[in-house]
Amino acid sequence: MGWDAKFASRAERMRASEIRELLKLLDQPDIISFAGGIPDPALFPDAAFRAAYQDALTTANAGAALQYSISEGFPPLRRWLVGEMAKIGVPCGIDNIVITSGSQQALDYLGKLLLSPGDTALVTWPTYLGALQAFNAYEPRYDRLNPAQGNLTPAAYAEAAGQAGGRVKLAYLTPDFANPTGETLDRAARERVLDLADELDIAVIEDQAYQALRYDGEPVPAILALDIARKGHIDATRTIYCGSFSKTLAPGLRVGWVCAAAPVITKLVLMKQAADLHSPSINQMAMHHVAEHAFADQVAKIRAAYRHRRDRMLAALDRHMPEGVAWSRPEGGMFIWVTLPEGMDGASLLARAIETERVAFVPGSAFHADGSGTNTIRLNFSLAGDAAIDEGIMRLGRLIGASRRA
Amino acid sequence: MGWDAKFASRAERMRASEIRELLKLLDQPDIISFAGGIPDPALFPDAAFRAAYQDALTTANAGAALQYSISEGFPPLRRWLVGEMAKIGVPCGIDNIVITSGSQQALDYLGKLLLSPGDTALVTWPTYLGALQAFNAYEPRYDRLNPAQGNLTPAAYAEAAGQAGGRVKLAYLTPDFANPTGETLDRAARERVLDLADELDIAVIEDQAYQALRYDGEPVPAILALDIARKGHIDATRTIYCGSFSKTLAPGLRVGWVCAAAPVITKLVLMKQAADLHSPSINQMAMHHVAEHAFADQVAKIRAAYRHRRDRMLAALDRHMPEGVAWSRPEGGMFIWVTLPEGMDGASLLARAIETERVAFVPGSAFHADGSGTNTIRLNFSLAGDAAIDEGIMRLGRLIGASRRA
Repeated sequence: MGWDAKFASRAERMRASEIRELLKLLDQPDIISFAGGIPDPALFPDAAFRAAYQDALTTANAGAALQYSISEGFPPLRRWLVGEMAKIGVPCGIDNIVITSGSQQALDYLGKLLLSPGDTALVTWPTYLGALQAFNAYEPRYDRLNPAQGNLTPAAYAEAAGQAGGRVKLAYLTPDFANPTGETLDRAARERVLDLADELDIAVIEDQAYQALRYDGEPVPAILALDIARKGHIDATRTIYCGSFSKTLAPGLRVGWVCAAAPVITKLVLMKQAADLHSPSINQMAMHHVAEHAFADQVAKIRAAYRHRRDRMLAALDRHMPEGVAWSRPEGGMFIWVTLPEGMDGASLLARAIETERVAFVPGSAFHADGSGTNTIRLNFSLAGDAAIDEGIMRLGRLIGASRRA
Repeated sequence: MGWDAKFASRAERMRASEIRELLKLLDQPDIISFAGGIPDPALFPDAAFRAAYQDALTTANAGAALQYSISEGFPPLRRWLVGEMAKIGVPCGIDNIVITSGSQQALDYLGKLLLSPGDTALVTWPTYLGALQAFNAYEPRYDRLNPAQGNLTPAAYAEAAGQAGGRVKLAYLTPDFANPTGETLDRAARERVLDLADELDIAVIEDQAYQALRYDGEPVPAILALDIARKGHIDATRTIYCGSFSKTLAPGLRVGWVCAAAPVITKLVLMKQAADLHSPSINQMAMHHVAEHAFADQVAKIRAAYRHRRDRMLAALDRHMPEGVAWSRPEGGMFIWVTLPEGMDGASLLARAIETERVAFVPGSAFHADGSGTNTIRLNFSLAGDAAIDEGIMRLGRLIGASRRA
């Protein structure tokens, strides 16, 4: 069929996601999986959610919980978020916030708003796979943002974009405890991203899905906070902050938010209205209830649990990894980034790891817009228990050692 | 800012929606509103939803309800839908169904999959405003589908599309109790749409948000059922059926579905995965619970209630409308379509109606891709009570009579 070709060309640009792969692996109970990027369901605040849905469905509330609602999102939830943003140095108002169906949806809408085919998106090498998937639908070209080691000059980015037939439209990055590397950008690197964006007159998409999950070290200001310090007011900034409850309270409700200049929010609201009307009313009400009653306690609880697992995994890596293997020591988040000996391929290693050692992870090339990074892998430490971490890292070290000698 | 122009050009193509307008009007308690297209919250099955969320959050279920899930949607809900589709003459399997966040999201994804800038979408004049908003983001041109009175020839559509620099990519229609006209296409007209689509090799998007809300008359087969009869199997069809629980159970959970050929579903799943990962796990579980336990009773209850209101509004129109005004007599759905005397403008009438008579509706031109239909208005009958219907239609008749004489 004629329309089939079109389907194929757009859809196939999107690669199979980590979640899909993870869920397949979870069906095999004897696999020790460090592949996912998902929270531990044993830590979900079930009781708080039970109370929240009960409250949303009282006779007084059910009419609103089950009915259509405004595209901007549930006002009490947005007001609560205004308070949270203030705590991280982002003074803003309710008109600076729109609720999205997870921060993944924010990335989709931002791609749709900003990117035309052939335009350039600046992303780190590696970057969040889901961001590449969201942006791919709008057919951009990618260029490498390298805020830690050194960006290109604005002119060099602009020239390369022009030669490719478009313009640089955005820089996307996860400054805190990045997926996949676990790394956090220092303040100077964040300022360099803003310098570049100001010079190129582009949007900065700041993905802060992991920001609340800091286990040690000092918080670094959000890029949006630095942008406000430069421009004097949020409505004069170019930074679009994407937040999420998926890693703190629960992902299954699909509640995230964008905080940005009011004119940007207005446009995202129009976009959301056309794309899915609004995020579920009942889930926004329930999330607000849980946030009001349990956010601080829940964050403290998962920080303690994940800090312990990170330390456990780092200790196991120290114990079991052969020479020539290096890894990140993240101050937060869910991931450790492992660099294998030069020439060792993460994807082949995964195939062998599943077959012979029954252990899983994500090959690092999946996170590179250009397919490089073949000698890297991503390990998740938020889901496995102590014994599984010890055993899985031991098996992985054994396999890498054997592969080196082979 | 350079990026602001791009925001503006895309976002402003989307017009303010009926829901936004409605919600503004609802803030003014003395307005009698026939403007919305929303269900009566007094009819929501609150108790069934309370039981459903309680069940989703038991210790055994909460882990899944609050966790990430697959992009295809909750398998038990999709299996339930397979049973419902069979009842309307659409034999299919679970791989023919993907869950979307309302059918609005299905329209957005289908626009994204099918339309490139300059391509042609065939829509009826008038059509669902939300479909135009969803498609507008992908910058199509529109041409007029007219299955009841007579489509153009395939060659004429194709030629016009080619002259505009693209190709015809889809036909979109609401065959049962259309929003905004309330009209239902007969079987012959549906077959003509399929003839045209087969000839042009395009997708048919069948929006069946209102299908369950039939109050009298004989059901007409879904276009997808007719397409299966032609091709022998759903996987050989080109019709993409969009369904929704928003008008039967409740809209606030944002649960809809697409039923189509498996290769089309596969592509929509990839698209959804990139755009928002999945619809909320907990809402899909809750909707499945309510569907299993209360669907038939709930549909019977709202059919009886809305049938009564339709009859009440038709009787009031008979009583109060001056000569020269005509209206549809829908067999289901939520809307009556009123044609004003030639030369009377629906938008100006709305302004006067709100100012002097405190009654609201949607001007018909909003539903026309070309802005025509200025002498039409849409009346909703699902939300107002008997007294409000009688009083509101009386006021509207008085205003139209006065406007004619003026």
